[in-house]
Amino acid sequence: MSTRVTVWNEFRQEQSDPPVRAIYPDGIHAAIADGLRDAGFEVRTATLDEPEHGLTDEVLAETDVLTWWGHIAHEEVSDAVVDRVHQRVLEGMGLIVLHSGHFSRIFKRLMGTTCNLKWREAGEHERVWIVDPSHPIAEGLGESFLIEHEEMYGEHFDIPAPDRLVLVSWFAGGEVFRSGCCYQRGRGRIFYFRPGHETYPTYFNADVRRVIANAAAWAAQPAGTPPTYGNRQPLESL
Amino acid sequence: MSTRVTVWNEFRQEQSDPPVRAIYPDGIHAAIADGLRDAGFEVRTATLDEPEHGLTDEVLAETDVLTWWGHIAHEEVSDAVVDRVHQRVLEGMGLIVLHSGHFSRIFKRLMGTTCNLKWREAGEHERVWIVDPSHPIAEGLGESFLIEHEEMYGEHFDIPAPDRLVLVSWFAGGEVFRSGCCYQRGRGRIFYFRPGHETYPTYFNADVRRVIANAAAWAAQPAGTPPTYGNRQPLESL
Amino acid sequence: MSTRVTVWNEFRQEQSDPPVRAIYPDGIHAAIADGLRDAGFEVRTATLDEPEHGLTDEVLAETDVLTWWGHIAHEEVSDAVVDRVHQRVLEGMGLIVLHSGHFSRIFKRLMGTTCNLKWREAGEHERVWIVDPSHPIAEGLGESFLIEHEEMYGEHFDIPAPDRLVLVSWFAGGEVFRSGCCYQRGRGRIFYFRPGHETYPTYFNADVRRVIANAAAWAAQPAGTPPTYGNRQPLESL
Amino acid sequence: MSTRVTVWNEFRQEQSDPPVRAIYPDGIHAAIADGLRDAGFEVRTATLDEPEHGLTDEVLAETDVLTWWGHIAHEEVSDAVVDRVHQRVLEGMGLIVLHSGHFSRIFKRLMGTTCNLKWREAGEHERVWIVDPSHPIAEGLGESFLIEHEEMYGEHFDIPAPDRLVLVSWFAGGEVFRSGCCYQRGRGRIFYFRPGHETYPTYFNADVRRVIANAAAWAAQPAGTPPTYGNRQPLESL
Repeated sequence: MSTRVTVWNEFRQEQSDPPVRAIYPDGIHAAIADGLRDAGFEVRTATLDEPEHGLTDEVLAETDVLTWWGHIAHEEVSDAVVDRVHQRVLEGMGLIVLHSGHFSRIFKRLMGTTCNLKWREAGEHERVWIVDPSHPIAEGLGESFLIEHEEMYGEHFDIPAPDRLVLVSWFAGGEVFRSGCCYQRGRGRIFYFRPGHETYPTYFNADVRRVIANAAAWAAQPAGTPPTYGNRQPLESL
Repeated sequence: MSTRVTVWNEFRQEQSDPPVRAIYPDGIHAAIADGLRDAGFEVRTATLDEPEHGLTDEVLAETDVLTWWGHIAHEEVSDAVVDRVHQRVLEGMGLIVLHSGHFSRIFKRLMGTTCNLKWREAGEHERVWIVDPSHPIAEGLGESFLIEHEEMYGEHFDIPAPDRLVLVSWFAGGEVFRSGCCYQRGRGRIFYFRPGHETYPTYFNADVRRVIANAAAWAAQPAGTPPTYGNRQPLESL
Repeated sequence: MSTRVTVWNEFRQEQSDPPVRAIYPDGIHAAIADGLRDAGFEVRTATLDEPEHGLTDEVLAETDVLTWWGHIAHEEVSDAVVDRVHQRVLEGMGLIVLHSGHFSRIFKRLMGTTCNLKWREAGEHERVWIVDPSHPIAEGLGESFLIEHEEMYGEHFDIPAPDRLVLVSWFAGGEVFRSGCCYQRGRGRIFYFRPGHETYPTYFNADVRRVIANAAAWAAQPAGTPPTYGNRQPLESL
Repeated sequence: MSTRVTVWNEFRQEQSDPPVRAIYPDGIHAAIADGLRDAGFEVRTATLDEPEHGLTDEVLAETDVLTWWGHIAHEEVSDAVVDRVHQRVLEGMGLIVLHSGHFSRIFKRLMGTTCNLKWREAGEHERVWIVDPSHPIAEGLGESFLIEHEEMYGEHFDIPAPDRLVLVSWFAGGEVFRSGCCYQRGRGRIFYFRPGHETYPTYFNADVRRVIANAAAWAAQPAGTPPTYGNRQPLESL
């Protein structure tokens, strides 16, 4: 059975903002989903304005990895859905948080920090360097890749130190950023991946698609043993 | 100026439960505060049933390190106080979470996980081992110390992997537990320290007091540089 | 193609010491190899007294994962073989270091520390707890497993903090030990696994065999991208 | 008593290479030592061509923190001195490895990896970003600092993942580098700090001097409890 990915998108600016619609006429989710389908994943999409934001218990139960893109409407995501996604991640569902999703409620919930950062919209060069080439997410990437035009995100990025730091971005204007960050929380694997501003065709970039596909494969990986909790009898005589 | 510690306590079982009152007639907070005063800290206390749980903006502004003990009334801690303590930790206030505080709202908020574990009340031997003797919190402890009677906490403990794991407990009934866990979140240092069940005189134990004092000194340590965030001009010409 | 494991053993005490021979008549390597073959790996063995300790360039080139058991003759392992194994690990060969292999030249070389510890031969209960149940090495293990009779190893264990700590042992005599430690060094994955004293039938234990098989699968996992080094032209105009 | 720092330097190119001598007429060690003296440390220097490279048992016994700069003569450092420095680090002496010291025998010994990297001598801008502003080494640095002309070092840098990553460099030619890396090995704290090519006046730069002084204060910090090892009696009855 192939890995089942649900691609979640806020899907607002593609409808309200012509320059964004010009790049992503079917929504950012459609571009991400196409890349994942090409890589062999079983993909569905869900968006903010669907009932329960498209993330019902049934959908999440059939999701191995969830990708998350949001920007201007983070606060419209309901408590119930944040709680539900949080619980599923702790139970083992993978989560890939993209770009401005750094300020999503689910990412801040999982990190416990502000997730704040610096930014600039100047369409500048972003070069993404692989600093942990032994990590599965680095597979096939070479030493670095270029995104011709992107928004800048700069340090300091207020996150817990990643369990593994895989990617660091260089920006033409002088900044660096920890762009690919791995976390384990409960039984779930989480990957934050920086690129993807809505005014650039980043999710059509082959290297970006490769990172997302590698991350989905990594985050979906079944592993380990179910934890147990609660009141216990002694194993050895006291 | 000496380090200012605020010792927070739920302070319910000491009033409602005679065996607990027999051990901590003035409350668990009084015992913890005495240990910290003996170690040279400037200490005040605060409890759940005070207005704003005793943790007003003014109190927190004058607090370098907050210690937290709670057990049966975690859910009575208000949103406002959890938010306030959370923000102060991210700004740099140290936080020491004690024993059943693993299930406190503030600890779960900072960890992003369930913080669940196993437990048994059998008054058994707990031997606390120092697995990272180079850490400041280990100062003066030797290789291990014994607590004659304690509640057992057992793995799996559902926390993010600690930034540094300093202490691991051995229990007579056969379990182990990661008992001393360090985290950095934002500018704040956090230490989880396991021992301290309300029916045992753990907070009078000299080694336990030493750990708490070492942790307060470590968590209070001023350091670093203030982070900056927001929209930025380029540093190099694009 | 199945994963190719080379099981290396010092193979001295099985020949010189009747109680050891009684347990491992064909050598410790034979028992470890049987467990791995049963788990579906392609296995060969190599021992200290073979030419080049059985670890020629050809053998290592055909090895995905090397397991290492040594005890009384660490210093007889030649510089050339230590160098060769070290280089292969950095290139991506997995390495599983077993029990008294903590003092092997290759493990100390990779760790950079003394790898010293405490010990006691009393045939006591060792209970191995899974503290990171989300790790692939934990697969199928449940919450803990018992080894009826083992040598004790106690903290402090002088190693770099593991990248991931998967297992912690409890001993009847009162000690704890970080028994399952994961490291990434260069492109190679390293796992230290504590149990396996030569006077006990530990390598016939089903849980111990499962850990070693899980670790071999984890350490062999191909991943990542080849790193590049050396003098470079600028990617952007200076 | 103030912290005692020994500044070690290869001190060859300052004598053989006029452009280097023009910048560091008294040697790189003199510039580093001046910066540390100005910051209040008690400083002595030692160089390769002194007897025992200036690092006798007596000198090391009186050294709280050792800084290391070498480039073209790493292999001339004797086994005895590498062993001695290694042992002292594991016992608790701090070590600050500078720039091309990434290929020194002592750094490779402590890391267990090749410590390889990319490089370019083009006198380009290096901007050093603070990615962990809560770390003591970041004190007083602000968000980033510029070095006008430096050699480039680029990823991949083949080191174990740092215990804490404090600094990341941006280079005008398009690369990034993990420039400030903290490690604990045994009782010793180790800091790798990237800048310092011999043809640029980097060790006169106020920000670079501040980093080195902060690192010396951090690495010298006494802490913890002495570890114990060896054969042990049971603490609890078996």
